[in-house]
Amino acid sequence: MSIITLTTDFGTKDHFVGAVKGTIYSELPDAKIVDISHQISPFNIAETAYILKNAYKSFPEGSIHIIGVDSELNEENKHIALKLDNHYFICPNNGVISLLASEIKPEKIVEITIHNLVTTSFPVLDVFVKVACHIARGGTLEVIGKVIPEFKKMTELQPTVTADNNAIFGNIIYIDNYGNSISNITKKLFQEVSKGRAFEITTNKYTFKKIYHKYSDIIDFSLPVNQRQKDGSKLALFNSANYLEIAIYKSNLDTVGGATSLLGLHYRDVIAVKFF
Amino acid sequence: MSIITLTTDFGTKDHFVGAVKGTIYSELPDAKIVDISHQISPFNIAETAYILKNAYKSFPEGSIHIIGVDSELNEENKHIALKLDNHYFICPNNGVISLLASEIKPEKIVEITIHNLVTTSFPVLDVFVKVACHIARGGTLEVIGKVIPEFKKMTELQPTVTADNNAIFGNIIYIDNYGNSISNITKKLFQEVSKGRAFEITTNKYTFKKIYHKYSDIIDFSLPVNQRQKDGSKLALFNSANYLEIAIYKSNLDTVGGATSLLGLHYRDVIAVKFF
Amino acid sequence: MSIITLTTDFGTKDHFVGAVKGTIYSELPDAKIVDISHQISPFNIAETAYILKNAYKSFPEGSIHIIGVDSELNEENKHIALKLDNHYFICPNNGVISLLASEIKPEKIVEITIHNLVTTSFPVLDVFVKVACHIARGGTLEVIGKVIPEFKKMTELQPTVTADNNAIFGNIIYIDNYGNSISNITKKLFQEVSKGRAFEITTNKYTFKKIYHKYSDIIDFSLPVNQRQKDGSKLALFNSANYLEIAIYKSNLDTVGGATSLLGLHYRDVIAVKFF
Repeated sequence: MSIITLTTDFGTKDHFVGAVKGTIYSELPDAKIVDISHQISPFNIAETAYILKNAYKSFPEGSIHIIGVDSELNEENKHIALKLDNHYFICPNNGVISLLASEIKPEKIVEITIHNLVTTSFPVLDVFVKVACHIARGGTLEVIGKVIPEFKKMTELQPTVTADNNAIFGNIIYIDNYGNSISNITKKLFQEVSKGRAFEITTNKYTFKKIYHKYSDIIDFSLPVNQRQKDGSKLALFNSANYLEIAIYKSNLDTVGGATSLLGLHYRDVIAVKFF
Repeated sequence: MSIITLTTDFGTKDHFVGAVKGTIYSELPDAKIVDISHQISPFNIAETAYILKNAYKSFPEGSIHIIGVDSELNEENKHIALKLDNHYFICPNNGVISLLASEIKPEKIVEITIHNLVTTSFPVLDVFVKVACHIARGGTLEVIGKVIPEFKKMTELQPTVTADNNAIFGNIIYIDNYGNSISNITKKLFQEVSKGRAFEITTNKYTFKKIYHKYSDIIDFSLPVNQRQKDGSKLALFNSANYLEIAIYKSNLDTVGGATSLLGLHYRDVIAVKFF
Repeated sequence: MSIITLTTDFGTKDHFVGAVKGTIYSELPDAKIVDISHQISPFNIAETAYILKNAYKSFPEGSIHIIGVDSELNEENKHIALKLDNHYFICPNNGVISLLASEIKPEKIVEITIHNLVTTSFPVLDVFVKVACHIARGGTLEVIGKVIPEFKKMTELQPTVTADNNAIFGNIIYIDNYGNSISNITKKLFQEVSKGRAFEITTNKYTFKKIYHKYSDIIDFSLPVNQRQKDGSKLALFNSANYLEIAIYKSNLDTVGGATSLLGLHYRDVIAVKFF
C-alpha cells in the first residue's frame, strides 16, 4: 500500500485535517497517511515548495503527495495529478510543482476531470482524496484526468548570477523553526560559480567570509569553555537541504531570537555572494 | 479494527498526547489512532463540538471518538460513552454531545462506571482509553457503564428566527485557521427561512447582499488581472461545512489579517440576516 | 514490530519531521511511528526530559525513542543508544538521559559508531533513524556502537532538602499547555520529608496550605453555583505525573491567563515547602 502524504495550510486546530484522514480511511482502511506539514503560511506556494521538495525524496518511490494549499478550483486554478521523480503529486496547477521540481521532467501530467461527479467547496477532501485513493489502488492517471503537456510555470525568487560570473544574488525564501534564514542559493550553484575562489557573503547589515557545514563548527573545542564563541553567534552554512543559510548558533525565536529577528533577515530579503 | 480518534485541548507540546497513544498501543497493538485536534482552546466545549461535528462523519461507521476537553471527573461532570449516528463517543457529560449532535437521537448512552477500578487525575489516559479499547475489541457499552436515558443538554449560541420569519439572528461560533468568522447559521436554516427572498446580512460594521459558494467566486475572471477584486476583499459564503461564514479572500492572520481581525468579528459576536 | 517514537525541537512546519518519517518508512514499511512532541523549546534538554519521562512508560516495552534535541554531533556531543527500563533510547550524550531516568540503571549503553559510513548535517535523519530501524529489526546495540560504562550526567534543577529536614526548595521546571507551573518536587519526595506534618508552600508572592489531587477539588459542590470558587482560582496540586504544580482553575493562556502569567511563576523560579 502506497503512502499518502499531506502538505497543507489547514493548520492543526480546525476539522479539515481530521476530515481528510477520515475520508481516506473510509475509502482505504489500510492507508498509511503521513503529515508533512499543515503549518504552511496560508496560500504561500513558495513555502509549500521548499518544504515538500526537502521532504518527498525521503519517502519510498510510489508515494502519493497531496498538496492542499491554494487549491480552490476556478477557471485559472485547475487541479492536476502527475508522476514525477517516481512520486505522485496531486495539487492545484498554480506553479507549486515548478518551484519544487523545476529541473525534473515529469513522466506524465493530467488535469483532473472528475469534478463533474462532485460539487464541492473542499476539493482536497472531495477530489484530491479520491484521486489519491485511486492511485493507491494501482489506478492510472488517465482514468481521472486528461493528459496535458506541462504544468504552470512560476519562476519568482530564483537566484541570479552576474554576467561576469563574479557574484550571485539570491533571496531569503524560508524561515525555519529556529529562526534561521534560508536562501535560494544552493551549494551546487555556489560551487559552480565559485570554482574555489575566495568569497564574501553580504546581507542587509552583515558579511560572512566562511561557510560552515554544521552549526557547532563555529566552536573551537580546544579552547576552555569560557573563552569560546557563545550561543548567539551568527554564521553562514550550507544546511542539511544544501541551501546557503544564515543562522544563529543555538537560536530560539521565543527567547534569545534567531537570524530572522536578530539580524533582520526576512522572507524575500537579498543575500549576495561576491567572488574574488 | 476500529479507528480511535482524539479531540483534546492538550496541545501538542506536553506529554499528554504521547502518553495516551502509548497507552492505547499497549492495550491494542494494531490500533489505528487519528488526531482530530489537540488545539482546542482550553475547556472550550463549543469549539470542541464545532470541530468534531465537522470531522466525525468523514470517518467510517463504528469509529470511536475520544473527547478530552474539560474531562476531569467530579460530581457534576460524569463520564459517558454513547453510540450515536453509528459512531461511538467517549466524553464528559458536560453538554458537548448536545452541541455536536442535537438533532440525532443516540442509540444508547451509558455513564461510565469503571472508575472504582482506577484512581486517576488523568481520566483520558486511565478511563477513556480503557473504554475505547473495550469498544474496539467489540465489547458492549453495558459492560463499562450503566445505561442512562439522556446526556446533559447545553443550548447556548443557537440562532433565533424572529416571529415574523423575516430575520435570523446568529452568533460567530468559531474562528478558523485563516481567520474566517463562522456563524451558527446553517445553509439549511437560511433556506428554510429565506424561501428565495432577497436578504441583507449585517455584522457589527458591514453588510453583505450576496452569499458565495466558494471564495474565488468573488473574482470576475473575464476582467484583466489588474482590474479584479483584490486579495483582502470581504465576502459572505456558505463554507464547506455549510455554515454562513464571513471571510477575507486569501487571508492570513500572520500578515494581512483575516475576517476576525480586519472586520472585528469575534467569537460570540452577532450576525443578522434580514429578508425582504 | 516495535514502536518508534519521536521527541524533537523540530516544530511541525518545516520538512524535518516529514523527512524523518519518510526515511523510516523507506527502511521499514511496517514501522509504527508515534510523535511524542516536536514543540520542545529549541535546545532545551530539561523540557525534553520532563516530557519524555512522563510519556515513555505508557508505551509497550521494547519501544524505541528517538530524541532529536541538540543532536548535532561534535567532539563534546557524541551520540548514544541505550536500553533502560526495557525501552530503547537514541539520543545525544548531552545529559538528557540523566534528567529523565536518573534513578534507573541502564542495561546497556553504546556510543554510536556508524558515523564513518555517513557524512551528515542532519543526524536524526541519517544516523538515529538507521539505529532505530536496526533495533526494530531485532539488531543488537553492539553492532552499531561500542559499549560505554555510563552516560553524561547533568544534575541542574534538583530539589534540595534542608539539613534539619524541615524544608524542600525546588524550582519550576516546566510550563504546560494550560500555563500551569510544574515544579521538580515529586509527591514521593514530599511524602518522605513531610511524614504527615503540616506545611506551607511559598512561591514568589503566594502561599498555599493545601495540596489538591485534582483541579475541581477546590470547588465545594454543596454550595449554590454563584457562591462557589470561580474559574481563575489558584491552587497547588500533585499533577497526573505526580509533581507539585501551581495551577489556575480552568486557565487559558490566550484569554484569562494561567499560573505562569497570572502568578508570575516562570521556568527556574523557586518554590519552597516548609514543614511544621
